[in-house]
Formats: sequence, structure tokens, C-alpha cells
Amino acid sequence: MKQYEATWPEVGALDRDTVVLIPTGSIEQHGHHLPLGTDSILATAVAEEVEKAIPDKVLLTPTVWLGASGHHLPFSGSLSASFEGYDSVLRSIILSLAAHDFYRFYIVNAHGGNTEPNAVTLRKLRMENPNLQLGSIGYFHFIDQSVFDATLEGKRKGIRHACEAETSLMLHVRPDLVRKDKVKDDGLEPQPAVPGMVWHFDEVTTDGSLGEATRATAAKGETLFNAAVSGIVEAVSGLHAGVQLVETEY
Amino acid sequence: MKQYEATWPEVGALDRDTVVLIPTGSIEQHGHHLPLGTDSILATAVAEEVEKAIPDKVLLTPTVWLGASGHHLPFSGSLSASFEGYDSVLRSIILSLAAHDFYRFYIVNAHGGNTEPNAVTLRKLRMENPNLQLGSIGYFHFIDQSVFDATLEGKRKGIRHACEAETSLMLHVRPDLVRKDKVKDDGLEPQPAVPGMVWHFDEVTTDGSLGEATRATAAKGETLFNAAVSGIVEAVSGLHAGVQLVETEY
Amino acid sequence: MKQYEATWPEVGALDRDTVVLIPTGSIEQHGHHLPLGTDSILATAVAEEVEKAIPDKVLLTPTVWLGASGHHLPFSGSLSASFEGYDSVLRSIILSLAAHDFYRFYIVNAHGGNTEPNAVTLRKLRMENPNLQLGSIGYFHFIDQSVFDATLEGKRKGIRHACEAETSLMLHVRPDLVRKDKVKDDGLEPQPAVPGMVWHFDEVTTDGSLGEATRATAAKGETLFNAAVSGIVEAVSGLHAGVQLVETEY
Amino acid sequence: MKQYEATWPEVGALDRDTVVLIPTGSIEQHGHHLPLGTDSILATAVAEEVEKAIPDKVLLTPTVWLGASGHHLPFSGSLSASFEGYDSVLRSIILSLAAHDFYRFYIVNAHGGNTEPNAVTLRKLRMENPNLQLGSIGYFHFIDQSVFDATLEGKRKGIRHACEAETSLMLHVRPDLVRKDKVKDDGLEPQPAVPGMVWHFDEVTTDGSLGEATRATAAKGETLFNAAVSGIVEAVSGLHAGVQLVETEY
Amino acid sequence: MKQYEATWPEVGALDRDTVVLIPTGSIEQHGHHLPLGTDSILATAVAEEVEKAIPDKVLLTPTVWLGASGHHLPFSGSLSASFEGYDSVLRSIILSLAAHDFYRFYIVNAHGGNTEPNAVTLRKLRMENPNLQLGSIGYFHFIDQSVFDATLEGKRKGIRHACEAETSLMLHVRPDLVRKDKVKDDGLEPQPAVPGMVWHFDEVTTDGSLGEATRATAAKGETLFNAAVSGIVEAVSGLHAGVQLVETEY
Amino acid sequence: MKQYEATWPEVGALDRDTVVLIPTGSIEQHGHHLPLGTDSILATAVAEEVEKAIPDKVLLTPTVWLGASGHHLPFSGSLSASFEGYDSVLRSIILSLAAHDFYRFYIVNAHGGNTEPNAVTLRKLRMENPNLQLGSIGYFHFIDQSVFDATLEGKRKGIRHACEAETSLMLHVRPDLVRKDKVKDDGLEPQPAVPGMVWHFDEVTTDGSLGEATRATAAKGETLFNAAVSGIVEAVSGLHAGVQLVETEY
Repeated sequence: MKQYEATWPEVGALDRDTVVLIPTGSIEQHGHHLPLGTDSILATAVAEEVEKAIPDKVLLTPTVWLGASGHHLPFSGSLSASFEGYDSVLRSIILSLAAHDFYRFYIVNAHGGNTEPNAVTLRKLRMENPNLQLGSIGYFHFIDQSVFDATLEGKRKGIRHACEAETSLMLHVRPDLVRKDKVKDDGLEPQPAVPGMVWHFDEVTTDGSLGEATRATAAKGETLFNAAVSGIVEAVSGLHAGVQLVETEY
Repeated sequence: MKQYEATWPEVGALDRDTVVLIPTGSIEQHGHHLPLGTDSILATAVAEEVEKAIPDKVLLTPTVWLGASGHHLPFSGSLSASFEGYDSVLRSIILSLAAHDFYRFYIVNAHGGNTEPNAVTLRKLRMENPNLQLGSIGYFHFIDQSVFDATLEGKRKGIRHACEAETSLMLHVRPDLVRKDKVKDDGLEPQPAVPGMVWHFDEVTTDGSLGEATRATAAKGETLFNAAVSGIVEAVSGLHAGVQLVETEY
Repeated sequence: MKQYEATWPEVGALDRDTVVLIPTGSIEQHGHHLPLGTDSILATAVAEEVEKAIPDKVLLTPTVWLGASGHHLPFSGSLSASFEGYDSVLRSIILSLAAHDFYRFYIVNAHGGNTEPNAVTLRKLRMENPNLQLGSIGYFHFIDQSVFDATLEGKRKGIRHACEAETSLMLHVRPDLVRKDKVKDDGLEPQPAVPGMVWHFDEVTTDGSLGEATRATAAKGETLFNAAVSGIVEAVSGLHAGVQLVETEY
Repeated sequence: MKQYEATWPEVGALDRDTVVLIPTGSIEQHGHHLPLGTDSILATAVAEEVEKAIPDKVLLTPTVWLGASGHHLPFSGSLSASFEGYDSVLRSIILSLAAHDFYRFYIVNAHGGNTEPNAVTLRKLRMENPNLQLGSIGYFHFIDQSVFDATLEGKRKGIRHACEAETSLMLHVRPDLVRKDKVKDDGLEPQPAVPGMVWHFDEVTTDGSLGEATRATAAKGETLFNAAVSGIVEAVSGLHAGVQLVETEY
Repeated sequence: MKQYEATWPEVGALDRDTVVLIPTGSIEQHGHHLPLGTDSILATAVAEEVEKAIPDKVLLTPTVWLGASGHHLPFSGSLSASFEGYDSVLRSIILSLAAHDFYRFYIVNAHGGNTEPNAVTLRKLRMENPNLQLGSIGYFHFIDQSVFDATLEGKRKGIRHACEAETSLMLHVRPDLVRKDKVKDDGLEPQPAVPGMVWHFDEVTTDGSLGEATRATAAKGETLFNAAVSGIVEAVSGLHAGVQLVETEY
Repeated sequence: MKQYEATWPEVGALDRDTVVLIPTGSIEQHGHHLPLGTDSILATAVAEEVEKAIPDKVLLTPTVWLGASGHHLPFSGSLSASFEGYDSVLRSIILSLAAHDFYRFYIVNAHGGNTEPNAVTLRKLRMENPNLQLGSIGYFHFIDQSVFDATLEGKRKGIRHACEAETSLMLHVRPDLVRKDKVKDDGLEPQPAVPGMVWHFDEVTTDGSLGEATRATAAKGETLFNAAVSGIVEAVSGLHAGVQLVETEY
């Protein structure tokens, strides 16, 4: 069920084992060829497809489109939540619905910069509310490395930023928003000498994208999209069925 | 220009006199007949119509759909931001774009519960950044009382909650989301003896709506919608042209 | 009962249906003719008169004299609370007395800039403590428009800032503090083209006051003062008697 | 000059070497015989006497009457600021006036529970604004031990709480507010075995006061009051003249 | 140089290209056989060895021993910082030294629960202070997978919690603190069906450790320890030499 | 028992009457002759000696080495916690262990700048958790004035900063860390005209120390150290035995 379009008695009638699905994205620069809303558009598209597949197991919230994007702020039109504000938005969504007795929440994230903030917020919430079941993961996590390897032609077999994979996904989901005449490869990379450093995108790219966007196709995007959706459908179904802990077989 | 769909170089190329238009709504109960997203849907519809009318004067952000709705929380599926979190979201949007040299921001609000928080946030921001031009107002403010009087048939000549006016607006904008078989009149009211008390909606209504929704029609909605849009177009054009202060004629 | 002068056993002996009355004002510029403490002086005077009229129904706290006055800060001697600090003061007063089982709180405000902050604080507190009865309103709300119309001679029939009405009130309450040789009319006003903008007082006035102060008289002040007091006495008595909710007669 | 009664141009005309004097008190239980406002009443009386003695050297703010009084909360009618809120009030007063170029601030405190919060706030402010000159001290600090010894007859030669000294001061300043028929000695004390423990007043007294109040007289109060006032006049005059640092003579 | 033992003129004389090295650990349960301080002990040991190897390139701060350990709190003696407090400690260390013109900071972490908080804090700091060079990484990151594979005999080739690797490290560093008679294997694991869920250690282990601790030896610990130290020495030396960004060779 | 070296089952087995002992120090300049860690080193040494004397009555936490030292920040290598961060660290330690049912906490402080923050934090915690027994005091408090008088030769009979007493203590505890060739007397002092002013150490000293360090000897340090330790042993034993309140004998 889509929360946005539902009435309160309809939500009130839901089974409380229902998994609340929360898409998180961003409004941030994606080079010259993809729109600022790219992450939010992809998060929404993936999550809506999941809701369509298993509507009885899911209450889908609107997409949290204001992400933690400080590393993109040097580029015009990019927005960044403060970490405290981002935390507060997630917390309010979850605690509002927990007050209505929902207890399973799963964040589907489309923006790398939200990964750590999502984790910190859920860890805080679980410490305060141990009865909640809380998870967060990138949609790209559900695309197996073998799928990336088989699908992508460029050097980087995974998701970077406005890259071959992400541009392909947009060509599949919202081709009208891809500026096809502006697509180009971009991206400096720090030498591996010092791992763990914090970089901003104006330091490591020329125009904001990171990867071989020129290799993107809608067909590749469809493959990746379907892999992500079916992975999330399986995960959410598992959560809905009840997570099992088993003794590891040492 | 719609920020969501624009690329960063396109935003970068905008004249900085452009007015940033920020729609604010809510996800909260609207009785048995209107969806939880009503306020956000109306804020978005009005603001997109404004952007369509004067695209060169406006940079339209996505709709802030998480409002200050604590007085609706007793009803399932309603969300409420904390006041601090709500403040932080608006602040992040405005300060991110102010860092790109935009300085005119105008909030178009569709949820009464956001009125005071919007004002508090803008007052704080202006104190810290006196060079910014900041405004906030409900779209319903732009519907003249004479229009309400001429259009509405029920007793209340104005906007309440899921009432004749709001239901009419939804019948105009998203008739597919109005549960026509669930429309009913509702609403207790405190006696006028003690003005200024804080009430929750489960204290003053039976099912969450406040007003004579049964009198709603799409035609009334269209009239109100057009009045709001043209009022905002005028206000934003005035802000774009440069606000004038004149000595009052005492 | 005045809290300031009472002992703890005297407060301890009060009926818990007693209404806690909290006056809120400011220390902010009021032009060349009224003192910085004007709003606090008027809030105190009105509230003390109410306490004198119905001493058994009221526990009167000291006046919160540090208001939200950022829009007056450009003028020397003006103070402004941060919104967080202002919130914290009201919250501490109410929660301290709620711990002693008082549950009815009514703020009588004399400074327009406190209106939104008062509302936000009470909404927060009520969400957290639904058993509390919380209200806030300007003393000027209780002066009926017909009284303003019959009393004031200038163009503005209502309260502005250091204006005909407010100066009259001070001439009634503390004539020794009115600098009669400095009284003058002042006040620019923004054109109505853009409603909802945040203005600072150095942008819209020459010397800090807004209105036709030269028309002020002590007699007008007495009329307005008495109207405000009797309105609050009625409201507080209503709250003390128990607020009734009645089904509206649609 | 008293800020409360001054107009903004009058404050604006002050020499910026003027010392801003800020009295801090509390609203908290003072046994059966003294009013809740005792500390605020004494802080105000002392500070106003100082202002009267050296009006050209002082800008006197209103009294901060909401103190840090958590250890008195078990007694009805006592209020306590949160430490954050208390900090915010002092910070707002000082920073508002610092924006008008005042730079010398001196807190005269009448409530022991404010001692540490005052110090913490001033340390924070000085770190952020090293150009400010900031001090805080209890009015009782200025009463020399020899004066206490010569004046008080009871065992405790100093200020406790609603004790011989404080009751004497109230008999001098506001005798109408002393419930003379309720005066009694009170006060348990922890054994000296464990210094530094945090105690609440319901743990160490029977009725809220700590000391030999029955020995109080107005004459003793006058002696103590005058000693405090002349000490503060000297200190403020020293600050006004410019504090000197001299090499210590080891 | 070790900050703890240095005087201020010695720190003052350092080249500002010096890398400030900040070890982060925890006080949290490590099963029946390892002490609560395990992570802090290992972080300290590794960092001190690095300082010994390249003393001229490093200013070593004391170890931040209070980590983000909410998932261990059910076990007695475990401490957890709030995320806000943890952030504040790192921020204060870095900003204090940045005020002395140091600009290179590298966190060496020994507790998995600090990974996300370290990242969030550094991202915040870098946004506010783009001139700082900030990095954070686990010491275990520097142990190549091939070294884990060649060294560990158990099923898990990496670091878990009080496991084969961590117990081996403690047998190398502080064998006196390993309770050898209490060493046992432990650890439930969630099925892979739902990735990204937040778990607490009482939900996934019997006694608090996770892995095959019975396979631990001091010799394995030495191998792992040396690998970590030499990796960090190389990284810090790289940072000291100046990080290079190079165009990637697509 | 030392928390750092204990396992969780060992802490779990402790009697809950055990006193949790928390040493607090700083990393701040101590002139040219003492290391930055002086306060933390002394706090640790004293507390460990106490733990050694009465191990069954004490659970000793690691030393909080990041103190409130803003007044020392002008000197290189000094660190200062924010007051909020310092509060958060103490709060997390105490609340984590309170969750394991410990209820007696005693802070042994070695840094004057922590005195007020320690008090504020414990007052807050006690208000929220009246069942906790909370105390905080400087180790120097336990050195009787008579001991100072008999031991010290310089003019100042007490603890200042890197002075005769503190340097003596370091010569006793960690003589290897005293730069004996750099010892000198230092220290300007404000005239007594204005008590209560906030000073920074670069304003009142030449090189950061305050007192007659040249008179320091290890023998004096041993005397002071032993006095402090035996005072704390007595206080903690008293707390362990149960604090008694007795009616004072007026």
C-alpha cells in the first residue's frame, strides 16, 4: 500500500506485521547529463516496483529526497540536509508509525552518502526501542557482483556516481531526463596510498560524475533494475515472514 | 524551472534574482474520504501550476511532505516531524541554495500546522542572514474572502480540514484519490469561551475531518485552485520584480 | 495568588483546578517615546489586574520579559531570546508546576513576536503531555474590533507597535515612563504585493515605532485596558469552569 | 540606568565602557516563612541600590528570576530552569547587548544554585568572544566574614537558605512578605564523611529552610545588605575604571 | 611524538605537516575471556607502535576509549557513548589542534561500532573546514585478506568480535589479560535473507563473543599486528608526504 | 576492580553497593616543565592508589582525559572539550553502568576547570535519577590546609597550576616527565578589585604556569599524594558504608 494515497482507516486496517518501506535519495548534482533528483527518482522507482510486486506486505512511505550530500554542495542546485536534520526526518517517520503499532521498518537507499547516516539513526532508534525491527541497505547491494560483471562493459563493475550503471538505470526509468548530448566520462581518483580520506566531488572530478557514463544503455539499466527489485522483494518477504537466527555451524 | 529534473549546470546558469519556491505539506489523516497525502498533493499541484505560468521567475524545489502534524497523530498513518527536524529541513534547503547565491525564497504552504513553524524558521534565518528575502504563506491566503463567499455553500466560508473547500480542491486536482462513498460532514468545535487553546483532532472530530465535505464539487475546486494560483503568480512576480517599501500615508 | 510573593505551603494548598497565568512580554525598542520594557509592563499590568479580579482562580507567575525580538535587535538596548531559549523558559515554568499537579496553563501575551513561539511551545508540550490544558493568546485579542473602532481616531484600528493604542495603554498604566516630548508618528509599510515576508523594524520605520502615536491619550488607554482585562477574566473563568466541546450544528 | 525603563535612544547614547549589571535569582521554596521569590527579590534590591549609587557606570537589566533550582522542585510552586535554558537566557542578554557594542558584563547572583551555571555560561561566552569582559559573583561574597561574625548570633556565620542571614535581609527589604508566625529553625546536614555529594532539599530539611531563622532581625539584615551593596559598588567601579593585571610578588 | 607526555612548547615546535593520529576504541564486553578494554588496548598498542616507527611524522593523541557500543550494553560493565557525545569528543580534539594550525588528522579505529560515527563526524568537519585533511579507518583494514587467509585456521577469515583474530592479537599484546580458561567459540548468525538489519549482541551470541576464539595463538596475533602496523605506517607516511590525486586511466 | 581490565562476567558479579570511581583530568598546557597530560596522570595515579587500597569497594573506570580547558587553548597542544561534550561523556559512563544497576558514583577530579562542569552534570543526572548517589570532588580537597601549610615553602599554600604543589606531585608520580631544566616561577594575578572575572591563562601568566614551581620536590609530592589518597579512601569507604544524614545540633 502506498501511504501517500491511502486514507487513515485503510492504514489502520493493515496487519501490523506489514513492512514499512522507506526510500531514501538526494537532490544533488549528477554531472551534466543526469538531473539533480536522480537518486530520489531511482529510489522511488525501485521501491514502487517492490510495492507493486508484494502490495500486501508493504506500506510504502514517500521518498526522503533530502539526503546527506555535503560532498556535492560545491555544485549549483545541490541540497544537503544536516546530519541532525536527516536523522530527525527518519526518526519522525519511524516513531510516528511505531505509535500506530507498526514495528518493521526497512530503508531502501539510493545515495551512498546516506549509508552511514541511515545506519547511525537506526542504531539509535533500536537502542531506545528494542522491540522494533530495523534495517537499511542500498538497492545496489542487491545487484550481485556477477550481474554487474556480466552487464557492464567499463572498467568499474559497480555503482559510482552518474556512471555507466546509474546512467543506464536512468535510461531505463526516466530516459526523458537524461541529457544524451551531455554524457561524458569523468572522474579523478585518489591514489590508494591513504585509504579512508574524506573527499569532496569537486576535488575528484571535473564536472561532477564519476565513471564511464558513455557506455550506458537502457538495456543494461533494465537488467540492473530488475536485479535490484527482485533482491529487495526477497529481503522484504523474508522480513515479513519473520527473521530467523540460527546457530552458525563452526 | 523544476529543481528535481534540472541538471546542476542548468541551475547554475539561472539568474540569481530567481525566486526559489518551496511547497510545504503534510502526511496526515484527512478523514475517511481524502488521502494522507492531501496537503502535499495540493501544495505540489498549486506550485507546479505557478511554475508552469512563470517558469523563468521560479526555481521550484520538491515538496516538503513531512509536516508538523502532532495534532493528527492519534489517527493511523499520520506522520509528524518534530519541530526541530522540520526547521532543519527548511533551513538546509534554503542555506544550500543560498550558498549558490540564490537569495529569494518563498514558501507556499498547504497545511495549517506548518504556519507557525514556517514563520519561526524564516525569522531565525533572516536574523542570521539579513541579505536573504524570505516569505511564507498559505496558498489559501490568496483566495479572497469574496471568492470563498461566492463559491462555498456550507456554513464555513474558508478552509478547514478535509472540508467543503479542501475536498473540492482534491476533486479538481486528483479526483481518483477521493473516496466518494466515504464523504461525510464532521467536526466538533470548542465553545468560544476560551480562545487560544491547543486541541488535537481526536478531541474535536469524530472521524478526522472538519467541515461540510458533502457539499464539495470539482467545479468549486477549480475556482478556488485558480484563485490561489493567480494570487501566488502575482506575489512571486512582485517579489521577482523587487519588493518596494513606501512611506505609509498617515 | 501571586506566585512570587507566596510561600510553598500556600501554593501547595491551592486547588489544582487553578489556572496558571503566565504573562509574556519583551525588552525591545518602542521608538523614542516608550521604554524598552513596554510589552512586559503591559503584560504585567493586565495580568495583575486579572489576578486581582479572580484571585481564587489564578496562580500568576512572574512575567517572562525576555521575548523573541530579533526583528528589533538593530535598535540599542533591545534584547532577543533565541527561539530555543524562549521555548525552554516556558517549558520549564509549565513542567515545574505540572510536577506539582497543576494542569491548566494560560499565557497572556503582550508582544506580537511571541505569538508563533508561544504556539509552537504549547503544541510540543501538549503532544508530550496530553493531560495538560494549554492556551496562549494576546491580550489585544480580547479587545473587540468594535471597541478599537470606537476608541481609536487614527487610521489603524488595532495594535501595531508604540502606536496610538499601545501609547494610550502606557499613558494609562505608567504615564511617568512615556516621553511625551518624543511622541511622533512613524512607520513605512511594505506594499501588499508580497504577503508573508519577514521584515525587520529598521526596514519599515524611521525611529522604531509603527503608527499614529500622537493621537494617544490616557482615556483611550483605560478603555482598551479594561476591555482586555474583562475579556481575559471571562476566558480564564471559562477555563476554570471546565472547557466544553459541543457538536457543531451543521 | 535601568534598561527596563529606558528608551532605545537613551541606551544608544551610553558610553560603551558602561558595566551591564545582570541580577540572577530564582523562584523556589524558602520554607514556611519566606516567599518563593526571595532570591529574585534580594537580587533586585541589591542591584537597584547599586544602580542608584553609581547610575552613570551601570546599565541594569531586569532580574533573571528563573534559576537552576532542581534541588528545590519537590516543594510546590518551585520552578527550575533546565541548565540549557538558563544558559540560553544569559547568553541572549549578553549577546544582544554585545551587538550594541557593550562589552562589560557583571552578574550579581542571589541563588547558590546559579553559581556553577553562571560560571559555565560565562566561560563559554568568553571562549567565543575573548573581547568581552565577563564576571559573576554572589552578592553574599561581598559580605566579609568579619561582618558575618559580628552580625549573626546563630551557629552558621554565613548564608544558607531561608536562614538567619537571608531572613534578616528580607526583614530589611520586604518585611511585609515575611510570615513572622511561621519562622522556625530547620535543617538536617549530611555527615562530613563524604564531601561533594549532590543533595536535594527534601533530603536535608524538614520544611525547606536551612538555618536558624528564628534569630533574624531587620537590623541584621540592614547591616548585611549595606555590606553587599558597597562591595558590589566597589567591584563594579573597579571594572568600570579598567581591570589591572599586576605581576605577583613571589 | 606522544601528546600526553609532551609539553606545550614541544608541540608548538612541531612542523604543521605532522599527522595527528587519533586511536579510537571502546569499553565493551568481549565475552568471558577478553577484558572490557580490549578495543582500546589494541588501538593504543597499534598506534603507539606506529608512533615509535615514524615519531617525526606523527602527533599521537590519547586513545578515545568511550566508543559507540549500544549493541553491547546488555552485558555488564559495557559503556556506550551517545552518538552526539562521541561526535563531540572527536570534534573537540580535532578543532582544538586545528586552532594550533595542525591540519592532518587520521583516526585509527579498533571498534567496528565506531566506523559509521567516525565517518559522519569527519564528513561534518570537512564540510565546515575544507582546508583540513581528514581520514578514518580500522586497523584491521590494513591486514590484507591474503594475510588473514594464511594466518587464521577457523572458518571466518577476518575480524569479528573476541574471535580467533582478536583473541590472537590480545595474546600477542597483553597475554596477561586473556582469561585462557574461559576461551570458547560462540556466535549465532542471522540468515542472509535480510541484509542490513540492526542486531544487538545478546541476540546473536550466547556469551558475547563471535567467532572461533579457541583457535587463537600469540603467534597469529603477532603476524596480524605487524601487518596492521606496517599498513598504517605506510598510509600515514603517504599522508605526510602529501596525497596525490591522479586522473584515472579509463 | 579496574573496569578496563575486567571481563563482563566479573563486573556482573560485583555487589551493586560498589562505588564507581571516575577520575577526571585534562590535556592542557602546564608550562614549560610539565607535560600536557599532567592532570590526567595525577587523577589516574591517585585513583589507582585508592583502588589498590580498597579494591572490593571500588569499580575504577578509565580516566576522562578530555577536560573543559578553554582557558588554556591559546597554548599549543592543549585540548578542550565543549561543555556539552564533556557532560555527555560523564552522562554516558554513569547511565551505562546505572543500566547494570550500579547506583553509587564518585568523581575524583584533578583539573580545576572541570569543577563546575562536573557539578552541573551530576545535578542534572540526580534530578532525572533521584535513586542515584552522585558526588564529585577534587583530590586536592582532601589535602588538609594544615598539610599544605606544613609542606609547602612558597607563598601559595595550595594548588594553583604547574606550581610548587603540582610539580612536587609529578616529581613523586612521574619524575621522568618533569623537564627539570625548564622549571620556573610564573604567574600574573588580577588585582582583587573585581572578583569573579573569567580569565584565560595567556592573560595571567607568561609561560602558562602559576606558582613557585622552583620550590618543588618529590618528597613534598609524596606527602601531598598520600594525604589525598587517604582522604579519598575514607570518603569512598563512607559512601560504601552508606551515607548518614543526621539532625544538626543547633
